[in-house]
Amino acid sequence: MRTRPLKVALLGCGVVGSEVTRIITTQADDLAARIGAPIELAGIAVRRPNKVRDGVPAELLTTDATALVKRGDIDVVVEVIGGIEPVRTLITTAFEHGASVVSANKALLAADGASLHAKALEHNVDLYYEAAVAGAIPLIRPLRESLAGDRVNRVLGIVNGTTNFILDKMDSTGAGYSEALDEATALGYAEADPTADVEGFDAAAKAAILAGIAFHTRVTIDDVHREGLTEVTAADIASARRMGCTVKMLAICERSRDGRSVTARVHPAMIPLSHPLASVREAYNAVFVEAEAAGRLMFYGPGAGGAPTASAVLGDLVAACRNKLATTTGAGESAYTRLPVSPMGDVVTRYHINLDVADKPGVLAQVATVFAEHDVSIGTVRQQGRNQGSGDDAAVEQSGAGERDGGEASLVVVTHRATDAALSATVASLRELDTVRGVASIMRVEGE
Amino acid sequence: MRTRPLKVALLGCGVVGSEVTRIITTQADDLAARIGAPIELAGIAVRRPNKVRDGVPAELLTTDATALVKRGDIDVVVEVIGGIEPVRTLITTAFEHGASVVSANKALLAADGASLHAKALEHNVDLYYEAAVAGAIPLIRPLRESLAGDRVNRVLGIVNGTTNFILDKMDSTGAGYSEALDEATALGYAEADPTADVEGFDAAAKAAILAGIAFHTRVTIDDVHREGLTEVTAADIASARRMGCTVKMLAICERSRDGRSVTARVHPAMIPLSHPLASVREAYNAVFVEAEAAGRLMFYGPGAGGAPTASAVLGDLVAACRNKLATTTGAGESAYTRLPVSPMGDVVTRYHINLDVADKPGVLAQVATVFAEHDVSIGTVRQQGRNQGSGDDAAVEQSGAGERDGGEASLVVVTHRATDAALSATVASLRELDTVRGVASIMRVEGE
Repeated sequence: MRTRPLKVALLGCGVVGSEVTRIITTQADDLAARIGAPIELAGIAVRRPNKVRDGVPAELLTTDATALVKRGDIDVVVEVIGGIEPVRTLITTAFEHGASVVSANKALLAADGASLHAKALEHNVDLYYEAAVAGAIPLIRPLRESLAGDRVNRVLGIVNGTTNFILDKMDSTGAGYSEALDEATALGYAEADPTADVEGFDAAAKAAILAGIAFHTRVTIDDVHREGLTEVTAADIASARRMGCTVKMLAICERSRDGRSVTARVHPAMIPLSHPLASVREAYNAVFVEAEAAGRLMFYGPGAGGAPTASAVLGDLVAACRNKLATTTGAGESAYTRLPVSPMGDVVTRYHINLDVADKPGVLAQVATVFAEHDVSIGTVRQQGRNQGSGDDAAVEQSGAGERDGGEASLVVVTHRATDAALSATVASLRELDTVRGVASIMRVEGE
Repeated sequence: MRTRPLKVALLGCGVVGSEVTRIITTQADDLAARIGAPIELAGIAVRRPNKVRDGVPAELLTTDATALVKRGDIDVVVEVIGGIEPVRTLITTAFEHGASVVSANKALLAADGASLHAKALEHNVDLYYEAAVAGAIPLIRPLRESLAGDRVNRVLGIVNGTTNFILDKMDSTGAGYSEALDEATALGYAEADPTADVEGFDAAAKAAILAGIAFHTRVTIDDVHREGLTEVTAADIASARRMGCTVKMLAICERSRDGRSVTARVHPAMIPLSHPLASVREAYNAVFVEAEAAGRLMFYGPGAGGAPTASAVLGDLVAACRNKLATTTGAGESAYTRLPVSPMGDVVTRYHINLDVADKPGVLAQVATVFAEHDVSIGTVRQQGRNQGSGDDAAVEQSGAGERDGGEASLVVVTHRATDAALSATVASLRELDTVRGVASIMRVEGE
């Protein structure tokens, strides 16, 4: 084994950074054996050097991150600060000074992964970021390497623990969104400002990264259709239950049927209880990958947290160090397909639509006609409200059953597969019907 | 991109080999883009060159595997023949002639992985074998690379599809072992001679490979404690159900609590229905990995079949080709811990023991005394048979409840954690009791 250590600089020393430091320090012998040389923590850039950090050597702390990455003797820079700037500049500077970079920064990678990869290639160093998606779950390496000889058609996953915790609470306790969010906040699963999670920004960044890798193309967060879960109600969850489903916040990346384009989206959706993703509880993450030869694979585990994220960072660090020792680099960006990202209107899926309608004869015929006019095929129709709780969920397909005179009723339509554009047009027309008092909810049905 | 192709030799052209050939041929452009150079199938060694193989170029077929691996211009040899010899010699010869090897051969790797790795290292080439364990499920690469900075403490998995299919059928239909095996055979999930699967040899080979990689040590199939599932009865499955469990054939690799030794074993065991492995149906595989920082990860997917196995082979082939292009090699064997493999007697787990006892007062006291004498702590005791089906599963801990006069009764004891040695000694003593007419079954309880 080489005795001169590889030098590692750490940018950021919060929850993840402290854990990275702890592992580098306490598992030094194991890491050295696995890398083939010892690693030495050469410096840790922080904003507040005087904050007490257990197990973090104070003499390594510096507030000058730029000077640290410019030292010139750093082999690998580990970035766990997050955000776009100054991190992008720091990473670029690190590359220019010959360091490989391990990052957990989903926002930056989803915004600007291509140019960072280009910079890394230019300077013949590595850029790894397993920790940016789904914490400790090995996902980027399996997609990039294990499935390198296969054709991935679909990635479907729960990649945000906060929203999964909220939906799981709503599902298991009947709580509303606000109540479930409060519990998530109290337990530390949601941040004081939960916007990035509940509005789907966090999941969208991960979807962009996954889509790019899975389809060997470039997808940025701006290409990802995003809907938050703040409008999901207890009634939606109950409605999902009634059709043997649960509601999950999903990131879905798909190759089109003709293989010439891809889509990426993040939104709440119903999935059947029999689907493996339906049983992903609390803040866990899980990602389904469908590939032509491999079939359906699932990767499951803790999607966030200091230690799990540090595990992913350390795996990348070992790889980057091994490559440094061997004076080589790992597989870089693979974006040769340059497949365009189609708009949301092109996405094909099923829909669960809950309409408030006048409770009188002929309504179903009117509604069904609107669906037919837009070429959206109806799978099942169910009158809800009056019959609610009777357990009578029989489909009343294309018939007048379930209609009554006077008052209001709730009509639940589940469609066959249709494009999002056709569904949107259908809903716009439905809103114009006198007998449709309102569209209570529209939710996609996935995983079938 | 380099235009001179990398040359690939294929050894074996059965179900997996045909699929590998198909993908190399039909996905040539994608593979070339991902590798950075085209690959060329230079020759395919088969036993029966005249057999009709759709999509396999007849001019590439040869019966002389040795000449093929000795050609000297082969970059990567893909071995999908299986078995120990002549494959070991062919692989070694390939190394000597400068070729990297991708193998799906669990038997060979589990018997002799260390010497093959040493040979590969000596000749500065790669040895990859993702396909040897759990088909398409990325497992070896995640363990070896993604978790390279973490400490794996446990690997617990369903790694044999045939036995999972049989147990799933028994659980879902109430069928006995023979009936379920017949169905597995009829559907092609079991081979005409199912010994390797049902006696656990296949799973034991995979356990050896996983344990070695997970704990950075060397474990061969001879180190793996192995019990088949042929003695699992419909009554065992029903008994498992009654305590909220199901029976799965598990491969379990563990680091001891003091970290100084490891164990590896394959046997049927009860696991709680709430455990993610309990819901792995039919011939699917799934592996749980517990690591210190990462926490609990699960990898799920098809564990066998031509296309899934080919996917894993192709992933390795792309990696081996990239390394050839970069004139480097990937991470080789990591066995620096040299942790000894402890005997089965040292394994600590819980046990479900079903005793046929005389149905008279004092029996439970006698039985409980025997457990106490061997320091095996009883969790619950349940009288079964007379009360069967009453749903009365209340524990009658350390009391005489449930005892009746005359006839026979069935006593079900579930222990707390104890060593296998202590449990074996307990059972030996129980057999000596006059009131114990027989030990109907002993099954380990895992996943808690």
